[in-house]
Amino acid sequence: MIRIGIYGYGNLARGVEKAVFKNPDLELIAIFTRRDPATVKSAFQTPVYRTDEAKDFVGKIDVMVLCGGSATDLDWQTPQVARLFNVVDSYDTHAKIPQHFAEVDEAAKAAGKLAVISAGWDPGMFSLARVYSQAILPDGNDYTFWGKGVSQGHSDAIRRIDGVLDARQYTIPVKAALDAVRSGKNPTLSTREKHTRECFVVAKEGADLDRIEKEIKEMPNYFSDYDTTVHFISMEELKRDHAALPHGGFVFRTGKTSEGTRHVIEYALKLDSNPEFTGSVIAAVARAAAKKAARGETGARTILDLAPADLSALSPEELRAHSL
Amino acid sequence: MIRIGIYGYGNLARGVEKAVFKNPDLELIAIFTRRDPATVKSAFQTPVYRTDEAKDFVGKIDVMVLCGGSATDLDWQTPQVARLFNVVDSYDTHAKIPQHFAEVDEAAKAAGKLAVISAGWDPGMFSLARVYSQAILPDGNDYTFWGKGVSQGHSDAIRRIDGVLDARQYTIPVKAALDAVRSGKNPTLSTREKHTRECFVVAKEGADLDRIEKEIKEMPNYFSDYDTTVHFISMEELKRDHAALPHGGFVFRTGKTSEGTRHVIEYALKLDSNPEFTGSVIAAVARAAAKKAARGETGARTILDLAPADLSALSPEELRAHSL
Repeated sequence: MIRIGIYGYGNLARGVEKAVFKNPDLELIAIFTRRDPATVKSAFQTPVYRTDEAKDFVGKIDVMVLCGGSATDLDWQTPQVARLFNVVDSYDTHAKIPQHFAEVDEAAKAAGKLAVISAGWDPGMFSLARVYSQAILPDGNDYTFWGKGVSQGHSDAIRRIDGVLDARQYTIPVKAALDAVRSGKNPTLSTREKHTRECFVVAKEGADLDRIEKEIKEMPNYFSDYDTTVHFISMEELKRDHAALPHGGFVFRTGKTSEGTRHVIEYALKLDSNPEFTGSVIAAVARAAAKKAARGETGARTILDLAPADLSALSPEELRAHSL
Repeated sequence: MIRIGIYGYGNLARGVEKAVFKNPDLELIAIFTRRDPATVKSAFQTPVYRTDEAKDFVGKIDVMVLCGGSATDLDWQTPQVARLFNVVDSYDTHAKIPQHFAEVDEAAKAAGKLAVISAGWDPGMFSLARVYSQAILPDGNDYTFWGKGVSQGHSDAIRRIDGVLDARQYTIPVKAALDAVRSGKNPTLSTREKHTRECFVVAKEGADLDRIEKEIKEMPNYFSDYDTTVHFISMEELKRDHAALPHGGFVFRTGKTSEGTRHVIEYALKLDSNPEFTGSVIAAVARAAAKKAARGETGARTILDLAPADLSALSPEELRAHSL
């Protein structure tokens, strides 16, 4: 059994917890929180402790999964916790990954621990799709589309507008663009041609809806480069129809191996729950981290450094016989 | 530079040769053939030698790519050549992979060489899609569809019928079945519901076409479990319209992470040329084999044992900065 700890208990942590219970070789030992443990209720009755009690679990937990956010938690938490445990995080600030990797690598190496950063689906499974496809088709083009799914960042941006009580933003890939890529035609696509944005907004009573819609549609970086639709709905409708966090997307590579000979590689995800799927990727990566640590490996890794067989609960012999 | 040799020169070898020239870090040193080298023309003016001259290239070739067929060549060729060189083959007789792996492993270990077997897209990229997806979604179902593409085995089976001069058989996935899987409904699909078969047949003058069509459609294992269409065409039409070897397919895994929360993972290939794409996978795998051999690793591996980063021409730093 591989003994798992969860550090930080939000949406992602609940996804990791569900995933651990789907994997018979993984065992959830404890959840650690910065809140008062008495106020944190695990759906699976997992014991909850304060984060400063984690050090008492050295030797009792094989892999600690860090479930904090990239913006404010993981940059300092992952190196800190990697001094005590093998760790996995889902650090997703793409631009700062090299720096985060270096800091985690130094801490984990010094402590003789193994750390995998940036596990999830983007970065994560989408990165794998890109790296494999680029290696196979060096003469080609990449396309990534996201959605249909909820973007937390865009939803938050709408909530900051005066007069908005709550909001949910869906990123939607444009079907015509997907079809053009899938055909192997290597289209050049503008931002606007690739995705549309659909917003469901709950406004304060008496708020100026025209102004809110205009502020959304003209917001730079977030909306101004896209065709955006805004729907005003009631709080009741938002809670009833938009509580889930679906997501997904498509990674394509199209390339040539000789004149006129084209190939299209497509990797697609359709996810009912972004945090539950991300948690499921993390659970498999935690298994690989435990295997690598058991072999004496130390330092930082990403999913690109993990042999696929290490993510599997099956033995190499079983994989060769049944899955190859 | 990673120095590549090609052992056996048919369709697949020509695909490997094209792929090597698409990868600036790979260099093709020589082709080895059992035929008279004077009769073998490389499209890239690669020097051609007899297979028994390969031993003179020890130290001059980093990875030898075996391009023989699984049915009659690779089972003895791969272990034999692995006594002299690091090797990659595309052994695709799924049921005999464990035995082939054991034989290659023994030979490669004894010689201090690194061998990767069964590289290509199925086994190969489709195996990767299966293993990753199974590891992420342990509570789920797998579906593999092939096509639209030419099946050499089925084309050969038609050619063995009395009165047939030549034939080309296309395996075609059924769109309704693909859509049902893609919806996440976990359908139970019969063989007939998953694929249809379309045959283009050149018959001898005066042959009994009704009998040929009946023999095809009723052929056990190959056609009797499928809805099969037979078209009789001229040799000229066959050569003009059916000379290419397109292929492809779809690997799905659909699974649940909690009650009512479903996810669909899809990996799809659409290939203008089966041998050129297979050759491109092999080229990337040869790079990984060379890296592993340079680290002192020996014995047999499959693509499931290779870290994705090892297939890439980019450094781990570049991958983290740009592809993760």
